[in-house]
This record gives sequence, C-alpha cells and structure tokens, in this order.
Amino acid sequence: MFISHERFRIEWGDCDPANIVFYPQYLKWFDACTSSLFENAGLPLRSLFKKHGIIGIPIVDLKVKFIVPSRFGDELLAESQILQWRKSSFLIQHRFVKGEVLAVEGIETRVWTGIDPANPERMKSQPVPREIIERLST
Amino acid sequence: MFISHERFRIEWGDCDPANIVFYPQYLKWFDACTSSLFENAGLPLRSLFKKHGIIGIPIVDLKVKFIVPSRFGDELLAESQILQWRKSSFLIQHRFVKGEVLAVEGIETRVWTGIDPANPERMKSQPVPREIIERLST
Amino acid sequence: MFISHERFRIEWGDCDPANIVFYPQYLKWFDACTSSLFENAGLPLRSLFKKHGIIGIPIVDLKVKFIVPSRFGDELLAESQILQWRKSSFLIQHRFVKGEVLAVEGIETRVWTGIDPANPERMKSQPVPREIIERLST
Amino acid sequence: MFISHERFRIEWGDCDPANIVFYPQYLKWFDACTSSLFENAGLPLRSLFKKHGIIGIPIVDLKVKFIVPSRFGDELLAESQILQWRKSSFLIQHRFVKGEVLAVEGIETRVWTGIDPANPERMKSQPVPREIIERLST
Repeated sequence: MFISHERFRIEWGDCDPANIVFYPQYLKWFDACTSSLFENAGLPLRSLFKKHGIIGIPIVDLKVKFIVPSRFGDELLAESQILQWRKSSFLIQHRFVKGEVLAVEGIETRVWTGIDPANPERMKSQPVPREIIERLST
Repeated sequence: MFISHERFRIEWGDCDPANIVFYPQYLKWFDACTSSLFENAGLPLRSLFKKHGIIGIPIVDLKVKFIVPSRFGDELLAESQILQWRKSSFLIQHRFVKGEVLAVEGIETRVWTGIDPANPERMKSQPVPREIIERLST
Repeated sequence: MFISHERFRIEWGDCDPANIVFYPQYLKWFDACTSSLFENAGLPLRSLFKKHGIIGIPIVDLKVKFIVPSRFGDELLAESQILQWRKSSFLIQHRFVKGEVLAVEGIETRVWTGIDPANPERMKSQPVPREIIERLST
Repeated sequence: MFISHERFRIEWGDCDPANIVFYPQYLKWFDACTSSLFENAGLPLRSLFKKHGIIGIPIVDLKVKFIVPSRFGDELLAESQILQWRKSSFLIQHRFVKGEVLAVEGIETRVWTGIDPANPERMKSQPVPREIIERLST
C-alpha cells in the first residue's frame, strides 16, 4: 500500500488544562492526514471530488488508541495508509509517533459519497473508482 | 446506572463543505457530555479535580459509530452513562439521537489521572474514589 | 434593535494550558450567537439561506476586547444585536457577561452573500432583504 | 523587527458549508504564528514560560480584516512580527497572503502573564524581559 507521511507540531491551542492535546484535535489531524494521503499519491481530493461528483468522504466508524499524551511544542510524525478497500468504502489507518514511541493509532472507515440522484438533499455512497484504488494500492 | 441528558443544536461552524457535522466536533460533544454526566450527578469535575488532586480524565480508547449525518440547525439529544468501572479507569457510553433515530454512538475509556508524585512533569493514574463510583452507579 | 440572549457553559476542551478559554473559541460562540439572533427573531438562517439563495454571511471585519478570562465550569451570558445596517452588510455586537462583569465584547461586520451569477465558483454580496432588516430592527 | 514566516494548507475541516474557511480557524493560526514567531527567533515559548514563570500570553485586544476567502486545498503564507512593545504587553501583526493577494490581516494585543503571587488562583501581568524585547526587535 502507498504510505503517506506528515509532521505536526503541537500548538498551545491544541492542549487542554491538563497541558496535553485535547483529544478531538487528533481526529482533525486524522482528517488532514487522509487528505494528505490522497494528495501525496497525486490524487488531491479537491480535484477528485470535482471529477467524480463526490461531495465528501464522511466517516462511519472510528477506533482510536491514545497511548502516550503529547504537549505544546512536541512533534508528531504521522504515517497513513489504506488498510482495506470495500465496494464504496475504505479503511484508513493513521499512526502518530513521538520520538521512538507510538503515541496514537486509529482506524477510520470512510465512504465515497455523492449526491443522491433521486434526492439532491440526500447523500448516497458510490463505488470507489478503480483508478484510485489502483493508485493507492501500490 | 445514572443517565445524563444533554441537547445540542448543530451550529454553522460545526459543519464542513459537505454541509454535515465535521466529525471531530462529535468528540468535543462527547467530552462536554462527560462533564455533564458528573455535573448532573452532583459531582462537578472542577470541584472533584480540586478535591482529589486530579488533573484530568484523559481518554485512552475510543470507538464511535457515525450512523446518520446531521446538518446546521439540527438538534441532537445526548444520553450518557458509565458502562463499566475498572480500578483507575472507566468506560462511558454516549448516544446522540436525532428525532427518532440513533445518529452517533460511542464509547470512551478514560483514566482518573493525577500528577506523578515521583515526577511532577508526568501524570499517573489513581483509583477512582468509591463515593464517585457509588454516586454514578445508581 | 432586537436583542438575543444565549447562555454558555465553558467546557474543559474550550480551555488551554493556562486554564482559561482559548480565544478562538469565543469567535465560535460569536458565530453561534449570530445564528441565534436570527433564529430568536423567527428568522432561522437555514431557511433564510434557502429562501434567498444565500450561501453564508462571511465576516469581513472583527474587533474584540477580551476583558476578563473565563475557566472550565464558568457560565457566560451572551447578548447580541445588530448595530448597523449597510446595503449588503451589517454590524453585529456580542457582549459576554460573567456574573456581573463584562468579560468579552466584540463587533463583527458580515456580508449577505450569494453565488455570483456570472461565475458559480465565486461569491457575490447581495442587498439584505428589507423584511429581515425590519424584523431585526424592532 | 524580526519577521517570522509560516505556511498553511487549508484543510477540509477548516471550512464551513459555504466552502470557505470558518473564521475562528484564522485565529487558531494567529496563535500558532505567535508561537512560531518566538520559536523562529530562538525563544520557544515552552522554555520561556518555564524560565520566567509565565503561564501564558493571553490576548486582550484583537482586530482582524478578512479580505479574501480561502478554500480547501488553498495555501496561505503567513508573516508575523511584533508591532509595538508596552510594559507588560505587546502588539503582534499577522498577515496571510494567498498567491499575490493579502487575504487576512490582524493585530493581537497580548499580555506577558504569570501567577499572581498574592493569589495562586489568579493571573497577573509581568514586565516583558528585556532580552526577549531585544531579540525580537532586530
């Protein structure tokens, strides 16, 4: 699988009164890493969405382990990859490493989603295009 | 178990370009619901933390199912309760209902955490006080 | 002018390592108060946007004074009103009070904005409908 | 004055249903740019805070002009510098440029703040150390 890397510096405003990252912030980074995974593979989501009539890749399932807390000024190295392709959804794994230690690990299930042709107010899953699967699987 | 209820209105800024809640926002509400659970049981965290020398209740494990998306102006009804007590940690379940439908469901594992007496730069788990377990278990 | 009131409890995740509200959070509340101002006047933005072909009311100018800090568990009372109507924009004032004290005060200039008919990729200001001005001015 | 540069990519979750950056996000970047200004000058805040007994540099006044909106995938170049030193506070200017265009410009007034020796529950401004002023003024 194609593996994408990112690097984050923990900002003051990412942290809570216990002086560690407030955990919803990790999920924002998961989302940014998901965008980077596609972009680093030469498939920026903004263009993909326009090309395929997609309005987003919403998440339907999330599992996270928070192993080591991080603080203002720490740096995290992120590693993201597709774990599994289903018909119109896929599993992405994100691993955040601090120094030598695995700090956070999560798996998101996301759905390739367009407008429902029968009702423009609703969303509808669509099969992930073959070219995307192939590009991200090598 | 003691059950706590909250009500949220989805704000404009909670939503993303697909016009649905950007999912890390749900985790912010989980955190607010966790505070409410204690507060509604007569145990506001701010006082508990001061009384027991606790600096926070960080999360170590998270599982969420996002079942139905929500939009700007929607209202969610939240129901939160402790699922299980362990020695120095506990599982909280949050269920968000929109109208008649379960929209989001998640389980957090959180740790009752103080300063490490051996190293004030580090955190250390502590046994959850009996009075808190008893109050939230009825 | 029509005056709208809201009440906020400061959540754990709204605060930073100094144990006070991280200031961008106040702006999220400004935005929520702006929505409430319209909604409390019987003009929910979601319906207004649909009716008038508006895609948002982006902000072009912001001035804020942060007078007294607030902490986890504090409650803020918000008071919001239109200060001035211009052709296609308006000034909103938000005042957050904690106990007897003015804690935060800000003025936003926002623009009534639709899609540019000449270019659907761009936004274009539109005159604020007379009925909205009248409803919010009494 | 010492000038600090940063670069931001607009993430999906930074944007609202109008498909432009939700404006409180700009203030989070202001905060990150303030940290970078000190760090890029060789004065990382985390160390400064510890050395000088400072708990934060809260903001007391904010003025922002939002000139050009930005979208998912856009890149912003940030330029930050101190505009003025006062006894225990200072003004920082942030300018965000997209391509050739000034997109956002803001000025924050921040206070060099420690614990009040008379009351550990309260904060108290302190004079900005001379070495910091000198380092950031060249």
